[in-house]
Order: sequence, then C-alpha cells, then structure tokens
Amino acid sequence: MMTDIEIAQNARLLPISEIAERLGVNTGADEIEFYGRYKAKINPSFMKRLKSENKKDGKLVLVTAINPTPAGEGKTTTTVGLGMAMNRIGKNTVIALREPSLGPVFGIKGGAAGGGYSQVLPMEDINLHFTGDFHAITSANNLLCAAVDNHIQQGNVLDIDPRRILFSRVLDMNDRSLRNVIVGLGAKADGTPRQDHFMITVASEVMAVLCLSDSITDLKKRLGDILVAYKYDGSPVYCRDIQVNNAMAALLKDAINPNLVQTTENTPALIHGGPFANIAHGCNSVMATKLALKLGDYAITEAGFGADLGAEKFFDIKCRTSGLVPSAVVLVATVRALKYNGGIKKDELKNENVDALIKGSVNLEAHINNLKKFGIPVVVAINRFDSDTRDELGALAEICEKQGADFALSDVFAKGGEGGIELAEKVVKACEKESAFKVLYDDSLPIKDKITCIAQNIYGAEKVNFEAQALKSISEIESLDEVYSSCPVCMAKTQYSLSDDPAKLGRPSGFTLTVRDVRLSAGAKFIVVLTGDIMTMPGLPKHPAAYDIDVDEDGKITGLF
Amino acid sequence: MMTDIEIAQNARLLPISEIAERLGVNTGADEIEFYGRYKAKINPSFMKRLKSENKKDGKLVLVTAINPTPAGEGKTTTTVGLGMAMNRIGKNTVIALREPSLGPVFGIKGGAAGGGYSQVLPMEDINLHFTGDFHAITSANNLLCAAVDNHIQQGNVLDIDPRRILFSRVLDMNDRSLRNVIVGLGAKADGTPRQDHFMITVASEVMAVLCLSDSITDLKKRLGDILVAYKYDGSPVYCRDIQVNNAMAALLKDAINPNLVQTTENTPALIHGGPFANIAHGCNSVMATKLALKLGDYAITEAGFGADLGAEKFFDIKCRTSGLVPSAVVLVATVRALKYNGGIKKDELKNENVDALIKGSVNLEAHINNLKKFGIPVVVAINRFDSDTRDELGALAEICEKQGADFALSDVFAKGGEGGIELAEKVVKACEKESAFKVLYDDSLPIKDKITCIAQNIYGAEKVNFEAQALKSISEIESLDEVYSSCPVCMAKTQYSLSDDPAKLGRPSGFTLTVRDVRLSAGAKFIVVLTGDIMTMPGLPKHPAAYDIDVDEDGKITGLF
Repeated sequence: MMTDIEIAQNARLLPISEIAERLGVNTGADEIEFYGRYKAKINPSFMKRLKSENKKDGKLVLVTAINPTPAGEGKTTTTVGLGMAMNRIGKNTVIALREPSLGPVFGIKGGAAGGGYSQVLPMEDINLHFTGDFHAITSANNLLCAAVDNHIQQGNVLDIDPRRILFSRVLDMNDRSLRNVIVGLGAKADGTPRQDHFMITVASEVMAVLCLSDSITDLKKRLGDILVAYKYDGSPVYCRDIQVNNAMAALLKDAINPNLVQTTENTPALIHGGPFANIAHGCNSVMATKLALKLGDYAITEAGFGADLGAEKFFDIKCRTSGLVPSAVVLVATVRALKYNGGIKKDELKNENVDALIKGSVNLEAHINNLKKFGIPVVVAINRFDSDTRDELGALAEICEKQGADFALSDVFAKGGEGGIELAEKVVKACEKESAFKVLYDDSLPIKDKITCIAQNIYGAEKVNFEAQALKSISEIESLDEVYSSCPVCMAKTQYSLSDDPAKLGRPSGFTLTVRDVRLSAGAKFIVVLTGDIMTMPGLPKHPAAYDIDVDEDGKITGLF
Repeated sequence: MMTDIEIAQNARLLPISEIAERLGVNTGADEIEFYGRYKAKINPSFMKRLKSENKKDGKLVLVTAINPTPAGEGKTTTTVGLGMAMNRIGKNTVIALREPSLGPVFGIKGGAAGGGYSQVLPMEDINLHFTGDFHAITSANNLLCAAVDNHIQQGNVLDIDPRRILFSRVLDMNDRSLRNVIVGLGAKADGTPRQDHFMITVASEVMAVLCLSDSITDLKKRLGDILVAYKYDGSPVYCRDIQVNNAMAALLKDAINPNLVQTTENTPALIHGGPFANIAHGCNSVMATKLALKLGDYAITEAGFGADLGAEKFFDIKCRTSGLVPSAVVLVATVRALKYNGGIKKDELKNENVDALIKGSVNLEAHINNLKKFGIPVVVAINRFDSDTRDELGALAEICEKQGADFALSDVFAKGGEGGIELAEKVVKACEKESAFKVLYDDSLPIKDKITCIAQNIYGAEKVNFEAQALKSISEIESLDEVYSSCPVCMAKTQYSLSDDPAKLGRPSGFTLTVRDVRLSAGAKFIVVLTGDIMTMPGLPKHPAAYDIDVDEDGKITGLF
C-alpha cells in the first residue's frame, strides 16, 4: 500500500469550484473565495442566503473514540471514511473537521487529515499553512499580548499587576524552550521584566473564541470579554479594556469563514478551527458544523481525544451554547487498543487474545454507557486491522450488543468509502429516531457541582478533591459577573485514562479526581478545570518529523505523514 | 479628499484573472494560483515558460529617495504612480514592490501600500495577512530555532555553545517586551536556559534568503548555509547541520512564488518579500523583479530607506548577485523634506523659505552624486505638496540641472497616474541610453575596504573606526570559508542621516563612521555591518493604530492607514 502522502498526491481532485457548485454555492457571486484550485472559504453571504431560504438542517453525527492508546484508533480516518460511505449509499453528507496544528506536523505526531484512502485533500496544504487561519489566530493573540505589555510600558493607567497577567503569547510550533520565559529584559525602553509562557496556537483562547462565534459581531464581543489580567486591587482587566478586540477581529475577518475542501472520493469537507481538547473544547467551529448541517442531509463531525473529554465537551459546551442537536454518535475502537487496555504490551498486540480483549473492553463499555447518558444512540465502529481475528471481532460484537450499542466493522483506511458501508447503514438507522439529546448538567449548578457531576457520571470517580488554589480560583470567578458562574466547565485532563492518572487503563473506579486549579475563559465562555499537569506547549522528539520533510523544485512535498 | 482606505475601497478592481491574462498567463493551466478574486501567486511553470520563450527583458527603473524625514517623502506612492503614468503614456509597465510588515500596521507607521490615488490593492489584505508569505517565513524561522534548542536538549551531539547561538526567533508584531528574553526556564524537560532575542519577521535572514533565491533549489541551499551558532570549540554550526533546511523550504514552497495584484488604475504589481533595509538589503524578491522585467517593457521597483542605504544595497547586493542591470534611477524628494534638512522645524514647513530649501538641498545633491557613481541616469521626482511655491520649485529645478539630473514634478498622490506623466516621460528618456551600470566595489576587496569604500564614497565619511568587537568578528568571518570574505557588505546604519548620527541632517562631512560589529548572513550571502544601535524589534506607541482598526459584520475594515 502507498503511504498517505502518495495516496493523497495520486488522488483525482475535482476543482473546488465544482464541489462548491454541487453544494449550491454561487461561485460567480461573492459567496466564496478561492485559495488556489482546491481550497476555498465560504463567505458569510452564502450562509445568509441559506438562512433566508429556511432550508431544513440535516442530521448531526458525532464521531468520538475510546481513550487513545499508542496503538492508534483512527478517529479522523473513520470520520472521513464514514462521510464517503454515506454518500456511496445515497445519503448527501458533508464532513466537518478540525484544522491540523502546524507544530506537531514537525514533531512526532505528524499531520491530522485522515489516513490511507480516507483523507481530506490537499493533505500537504491542510497540514501546513492551509488558508492561514492559525497564523491569523497567532497574530491576533500576540497583538493582545503586545498591547498589554505596551499598556504597562506607557504608564499603566489601568494599574495592571504584571505578576497577574493571565493571557500568554502563542506560536504554532512545538518549542519547549518557550514554555517558561522571562520577557521585558534590557533597558527602560524594552518593557517590564516578568515571567511569561508561550503556548501552542491551538491552546489560545482566541482559537476557542473563533470556534464558538457565530458572526463577526459575536467574535468581537467574545474577544472583548477575554479576561487578560488582574489589577493590583484584584479587579479584572478584560481585552476590551486594552482596546484591541476590534483590531483582533480585523485580523480574523477571513479566518472566521469556514474552509471547503474535499476527500479522496470528492466528498465535501468543511475544515475549520482546531482548539485543544484539554484546555479548550476540542472540536471544529460552530459555523462549519452549522454550515455542514445546512448543506448535507447528514453532517459528520468529530471531537478531540476520547469520548470522556471530546464528546462530553462537544455536547456540554458546543451543543449547549450553539443549540446544535446531535442525532447519533459513533464510538471508534480497535481490537488492538482494547487488548492494550486489557494489559497487553504494544509489540504483542498482533497476537490473538480474546481474554485480554474482553478485559480491556471495560473501557469501551464505559464510553458506551457514558454516551447513552446524553440521550442519543451509539454505534461502535471497529476500525479494522489485518491482525484482528474472527473470534476477537465476534467477542466484541457480543459486548456491544450487551451494552445496547449497534456495531459495525470499518475498513475505510484500506478501502475508502467502500470500507464504511456497513457503518454508514447503521448510522442512518440510528438517526431515524427523533433525537432525545440532553446535556449532562444544568447551567445553574455551582461550579464545583458541575465538575463533580462530570467526574462521577463520566469518569467514574468516587469523589473530587479540590486543592486550595482551585477553591480560591472558583470563589474569584464567582465574585466576578454572575454570568461566569453559569458557564459550562471545560475539563483539562489526561486523555489516556478515564481518570486523571494516565497509567490507569481500562475502567478505573474508586479513585479521587484532583482539581488543581480553575481558570475562566470569559471570551469562550467556559471555565477550564485543570487536573494534573496539562501540556500547552509540546516539545520536539529526538528525531523530529521535520528532518525527513522535503520539497522538490516543482514544489512537491515528501516526508509528511 | 477621501482617506487612503476610502479611496482603496471605492476603486474599481478588475478580477486578477483578467490582469494575469493580459500579462500572458494561462489562467486555465497550472501557471497561477488565485487567493480570492484580487490576489494571485504566479507559479514557477509560468516563469519557466517565459524563460523558454526567450522573451527580452524590459528596462529596470529603481525608485529611491533622499534621507527620510518626519515630513514624509512618498516613495512607494511615487513608485505606484509612476508605474501607472508609464502605462498612460503607452509604455507597458509592471511594478515590483515589497510586502508590508504586519507589526507596524498596528503601531505608528501604518501600512505600506502607497497612498491617495496611487495605491496597490486590496490595501487591507496587502497590509494584513496578504497571501501568508510573512507567516510562512515566521514559521520557517522559528522551526529552525525550535530545532536548535531541541538539538541541545536531546544531547547536543554537535556541541553547540548555548551562549553563542546567533539565530533568533521572530514574530511579525511590534513587541518590545520580546527584545531581550530568557528562554528555556522551568524543569529538565523544558530546555536549557539562555538569553535570546526576538526580532520582527522582516529582520529574519530567512526573509533575506527568500528574496535573493531564484528557485526552490537555491532556497534550500541558502537556508542550509545559514550560520546558526558556534560550537564550544569555536567552529561554525550551519542550518544544514540541524537538518531542517528542507522542511523550512517546504514551509516556504508557496511563499517563494511572487504575488500579483493591481494598482488603483489596474496596473499590474508584483508584491513579494520585504527584508529590513538595515540588517538586510531592503528590496523585494529577485524573482518578482525578474518576472516584472519579463512581463513589462519597463519594471519599476523601489528600495527601502534613503538612497545611501536602499539604493546602494539594491545595486551592490541585489543587482550584483542576481545579474540585474538597472537603466535609470528616480530620486524622490519633497520641498518640505529639503527645508527640514535646511534646519526648518516640522510645523513651519508650510511657509515658503527658498534659502532653507537651498541649504537643505545639499542632501539631495549628495544623493544625486552618489547615484551617478553607479553609472546610471538620475531623475529627481519632486513629490508635490500644496504648500510648495513657484519660487521653491524653481530653485529646486535649478539645483538639479546644476547636478546633471533630470527633474520632474509628481502629483500622483492626488491625481493618480495623470499626476506622473511628466515624470514618466523623463524616465523613458533616461532609459533610452544603454545602461553603463557598475557596482561600487569589487567582490575581492577585503571586508574592511568594502566598508570604507561605501563610507567614503556614499556617506561622505572621512574615515572608519572599527571597534575591537568588529575587528574580531571580521577575522572570524575571514577564517571561515573564503567564499564569505567575498560577499558584499550590508550596511546597518540610521536612515535619517548620511552619517551614522541621526541628528546630522543635510550633507555631513569630516565625520568618522563607527563600526561596532559585523555579522555573517551566510545564507543571504552578505556581511551585515552594524553602526550604532539597530532596532530589529519595534515597539508600540502610546496610542497604537490598533486602537482604531475595526471590522464590520460584512468584513469591511476601517481605521487602516
């Protein structure tokens, strides 16, 4: 089989204008901006027209997964393959995905545009600069930072306490040396020395804000609401006090428009935004999802990390605040990953082991049960590997049946949409019923109770331990505007376990979740809950992927994966 | 009169595909990539086709200026207006310009896309993210930085001395707090603490490299040649030793292709690259200039700062290394700026003062004489202001005549191309003769002699004082590969005076130029000569332009200037 980039470079792409026209975009009017032949941005005028035409929304399907393991689950690949399979069985379907981050492409993780015969294309562009959205977010974020330090330099009329600046600079690069820095050294003209921290761009609140905004007006309001610092007297300083929220929005005027591309089988895909799934909510923009629902009878979207983080936030943050109503959820698992959860080492996952599979399937069961709490049907998608045996798959089917979840094998990596027909049929069936979707907790619950609700109902924790700093931060947030206490919480937890301990595989129980601190993302309108150390700036490995990436004289890239 | 952005938003733009087709681009083939309706990138395949067709090059005209003053000279405006005027008198002319830097747009300087009725459009896009070139350069630059610190973190096989890392991180933002920073604080996993300095993106050697490269192959070679650090034993570490030059080139694969836009009168303009005019050579890419020469019977381009820096480097660095041969040079001056050079304060420049004008014109005379040393005819363009009087303009004409330079009034800010007809006619006349262009000094001169040659012949210095650090650095460079000693020098000097003292207006003489230090830009292939303090990271003013920039619900931007 060819490598991902070889498959991508051999795919037969249609001009994106053709994809857009099939979706009803008037490509001659001001409804679309082309970025080369195969990428485009959908302008607000098209979205306005759709709204005015009162077109009915399609059905929304979320793709999520069990807890990630080193064995790999293939969530994006399944999302892309499912979208293509839906079209193959005659269901007009549009995919909505996150944009990949540039930093990890040069590190160990590589790109994030699906894999094998289920990719979004052009994969090189999508994985590198794409249409510049992340660069615009980096610029807007760093304009605010420069303006804050400049405000202090120019007399500090707002009386900002330089020890309490909450908003950090970002770069879309894996650069551990920027995790902890001192800025403002030098002479009087060079600023005020203080400790600072660079994050990777996907961790920026500007990213979360962009993904949750439904218009430029909303974007400007949310940017203005970002909590930037505290004054010496302890009162808050918002971005609007620094007066750059409108200029930040100007920097984001194109970035806010969803990007249209296509899959290896020419299925339309909207790829837009990519907030972290730990300190942010981990799914593509509300605007892209809503557009996909207007354009397709089905919209397939995904959420970051496992279902305990990604799906919970998709439902409790994205759907809650935007009014989206999902009809079904696809839970991706692999035989290998479940055996890993059952205690098998990574290099022994090829060998059949039904017992280990059954033992590890407690993780799958936990996620099925969790997802059912949101009132929507669950379809388990087993992303097939050659090493999966008939007995293993049989045992897995039985487990799903017992848990009341439908079950389908998926082979979209090797076969494209053809490999996802069974899954597509199960998804269509699951969507037939009226959605009984409900969020997990009520807005009005106290912050601590929201956290405890998620910890006990989703993670399976026995109790929650709030450290002193967390309690202090919670009461600080409660003392600000009342609107903030009623925000949903955004859990920042390890993705590798249902608990806050990455080593606890399977279905941990009886544990105590420790909440270290809590932070208000007042622009994004959620409260970030920090459990354990959360990495917001990755590093490069000993042999970074960058060493093997190259481009030839004709601009053809190799070594991307 | 309307503001610049109002004029820009009211201009009648042609689809960029139409501009491209007029230039002979096959827009149906792979010769162009569109970035929306009004921006495009020219692909290498078009440049290859032009080359294979053996089309004769047009005439190259450089626009430069006297030393900048607070009164403003309007160099870019004159360049754009001249290009439009040339087309009005039936001369097929293409403009080649630098891309504006994003940082200053939010600071005090504003944008850099011309002014009044002589602008390149869409000015909002050009001044903000444009086609993403600067973001790509920022990413490539910072990938190298992350890889260097990662190399040290992962065992430092190359034995890099962390105290001698020469290559800095960059951001396209005016952010003084990043001038002097300590990176790598925290725990063992967070890198090695060391002092670092962020520069603004236009100061990156990657920018200079991109602008001097003639292909992706050349780009890769030059990126690999960048001198990154010294080892503990004093031997050099190049970018190729860090093994990310190919990945950097992959990040730049689109950025290396020239951008096509149009002026307020639909004249084609190639806007590409924008290196600093102090620590770099300050003109647009070689590829854009060469393309403009293939497409137009005339190509009008400009260089940064005054002629002592911009024009000298254009000739001695860009033309020398790329084989470009200029036919004429336009020297922009204003009555106001010359009176300022004659000792008049900024708020009294409106009043007629022929004596001050004559006194200050020594600055103009010096530049005319300097330019003549390069063997090409000089046309002085007086960028008119309402306050200029008949007597002042008469005196100025007389001065130019005495210096053997042609002279024309230019009113392109208020009148567009129509205001530059006289100038265009003088330029055409100047281009009639065969060019006798020559560079100022020979490659083989010792580094110190090259510096002295420029100091004495262009700046009018009596002698040059090399400080100890400069002498040490020069011998260090001479001890490296011989090829580096034969590189041209790139002077980093104040733009406000012919001397290295910004307060010395007019035509300073008898002064000693002080060289503090010398740095090798081994990828760009020039030796940067530092005289005085050179600012490579600007700051924001008390009231940054960002406070007044806004965008409405339809994406229309206001407050840009």
